[in-house]
Amino acid sequence: MVGGGQLARMTHEAGIPLGIRFKLLSDTPQDSAAQVVSDVVVGDYRDLDTLREFARGCDVITFDHEHVPTEHLRALEADGIPVRPGPDALVHAQDKGVMRAKLMEIGVPCPRHRIVRDPADVAAFAAEGDGFPVVLKTVRGGYDGKGVWVVDSAEEAAEPFRAGVPVLAEEKVDFVRELAANVVRSPHGQAVAYPVVESRQVNGVCDTVIAPAPGLDEELALRAEEMALGIAKELGVVGHLAVELFQTRDGRVLVNELAMRPHNSGHWSMDGAITSQFANHVRAVLDLPLGDPRPRAPWTVMVNVLGGDYPDMYSAYLHCMARDPQLKIHMYGKDVKPGRKVGHVNTYGADLDDVLERARHAAGYLRGTITE
Amino acid sequence: MVGGGQLARMTHEAGIPLGIRFKLLSDTPQDSAAQVVSDVVVGDYRDLDTLREFARGCDVITFDHEHVPTEHLRALEADGIPVRPGPDALVHAQDKGVMRAKLMEIGVPCPRHRIVRDPADVAAFAAEGDGFPVVLKTVRGGYDGKGVWVVDSAEEAAEPFRAGVPVLAEEKVDFVRELAANVVRSPHGQAVAYPVVESRQVNGVCDTVIAPAPGLDEELALRAEEMALGIAKELGVVGHLAVELFQTRDGRVLVNELAMRPHNSGHWSMDGAITSQFANHVRAVLDLPLGDPRPRAPWTVMVNVLGGDYPDMYSAYLHCMARDPQLKIHMYGKDVKPGRKVGHVNTYGADLDDVLERARHAAGYLRGTITE
Repeated sequence: MVGGGQLARMTHEAGIPLGIRFKLLSDTPQDSAAQVVSDVVVGDYRDLDTLREFARGCDVITFDHEHVPTEHLRALEADGIPVRPGPDALVHAQDKGVMRAKLMEIGVPCPRHRIVRDPADVAAFAAEGDGFPVVLKTVRGGYDGKGVWVVDSAEEAAEPFRAGVPVLAEEKVDFVRELAANVVRSPHGQAVAYPVVESRQVNGVCDTVIAPAPGLDEELALRAEEMALGIAKELGVVGHLAVELFQTRDGRVLVNELAMRPHNSGHWSMDGAITSQFANHVRAVLDLPLGDPRPRAPWTVMVNVLGGDYPDMYSAYLHCMARDPQLKIHMYGKDVKPGRKVGHVNTYGADLDDVLERARHAAGYLRGTITE
Repeated sequence: MVGGGQLARMTHEAGIPLGIRFKLLSDTPQDSAAQVVSDVVVGDYRDLDTLREFARGCDVITFDHEHVPTEHLRALEADGIPVRPGPDALVHAQDKGVMRAKLMEIGVPCPRHRIVRDPADVAAFAAEGDGFPVVLKTVRGGYDGKGVWVVDSAEEAAEPFRAGVPVLAEEKVDFVRELAANVVRSPHGQAVAYPVVESRQVNGVCDTVIAPAPGLDEELALRAEEMALGIAKELGVVGHLAVELFQTRDGRVLVNELAMRPHNSGHWSMDGAITSQFANHVRAVLDLPLGDPRPRAPWTVMVNVLGGDYPDMYSAYLHCMARDPQLKIHMYGKDVKPGRKVGHVNTYGADLDDVLERARHAAGYLRGTITE
């Protein structure tokens, strides 16, 4: 796996019972996954020679992030190393312009959008629809709210163009909530769909995920699952695909983003599903039969643990375990910095209010925003 | 953790979400746990200098097996390294003579037993009770049926004395089945009890575990749990304690063996309990609050996967995953040798017959004794 973040850490954890020999390419020996994996190569994934050397002896290559240059992936494939998801699929998670064009081509509903040249073109885009605000995104390199701007005028639209990366303009969707449809697909086309979840963001960062999405119309849930399965098939995705969705006031779902790797909106599955997203990602990437994605409890809630003002979470960690012996804590081994994702908690049960309260309390206590 | 077997492998797996930095002392770099742990020291646990060097920088030492010499553990403690379970507790899992003496002292029911000097003394022991057969055990070094003999006469009793290790004679208990009571205790005395399970042995090796033990009288289950909690407390155990029990025809439970580490009879908890034995062992050893040991499903069944005649299990592995998407496979990364424990499978659900059939089928198919 290329990339030593928490997704690689949790993928390794899921691979242990499957008997998988996991090899990691990590930026540093201190990265989240590098702390727990036996076979670690420290190197730069942007360097093709490093990638080639790393890939030697691997049966298959997969990723913790979308940042490996597409041409490097093609070079690995040319060397005979299976790359899953492959570059032709992965480009849709790397480049938002390519993603939008493809989704339109295969008839998947998206927000109104087009590539814009400059601030004046942003104003023109606004005038073509309902006016400002307009959402601007660099087509490459953004995540967790980075590389995304919401602008109210052409004057505010200068910033996104400074990086010299093409900029995509999108209508600001009037949504009731955000959903995510997570699916996993294997090389020979077996696919499974997790229940559609509700994803709540705070300042552009995922905060809470509720599985399944409360009160979601059954027909709409089915449509979202079918849409995600269809995207996975049409784009030739292998492994986990997260389709982030807007649920609009008029009862439609529009695709916001795609991610082709285990995803924050699927972390609930570690304790809440029969087979976690990480286990199914490993199974798909190795072309093993997929596991059952169904939930084990009526409700599962995931809340991210962000770093707060106190670098030492130890006493909070003790408190949370003692307060709730059913709490599932997942720490990433990262230094605490304000706002940084350093872990998540899962809770599950039959009473959604209770399950939500327990997860929120634990995450807030760990961050230091709740002191009882 | 000292020892690189599958128990260390699964303990590391359970420690990852807890944010634990796991350091391993392994006999070889190929050992089951050494394949998946970042921080591995290869060395001999019987060598005190190796142990001391390994322990440097550890917050606490625990074990994958009972074979570290008691005097070495005392030396580590004298160096200021917490050893959990400590040597005063662990000796009861290392030496069956010490264990029996202590259990009698604290009033725990055991089979009739005493240390015997030679075959003639075995005959005398038999005559003191109901005669032959008699069970003979070397007080140290046995496991999985090794170091245990069932003899029908004094003539058959020569073998156990050849090793020069003291020999314990025990009555052959007329039991209806074997049970196991698993508990976990932390340094400041918090303790949790898993439901009592039924353990079925084949040729002295654990084959099947059913959680909870089917049809077990509630009062007897409670008595077994209390007995295990009492032993953990009286012996000062820290971490996981497995109490292997005989359920007799006349409705008593007698202690067969003790193990002070995660135990085969607790593997079901990885998929069947809110908190697995491995997670709770880590929590106890680090003096963290313990997690809820209750089951997540009405029935969970574990069946060990033993090596069969075919060294390559890959096609069987694919078959089992495809046949049962709810199956939980746990492979240990070991070379397949006939009769060797190379993994286990867990199944769970509401229908015990179905849960048993699925686990047995998978384990039998992986071993090659079932070919559909």
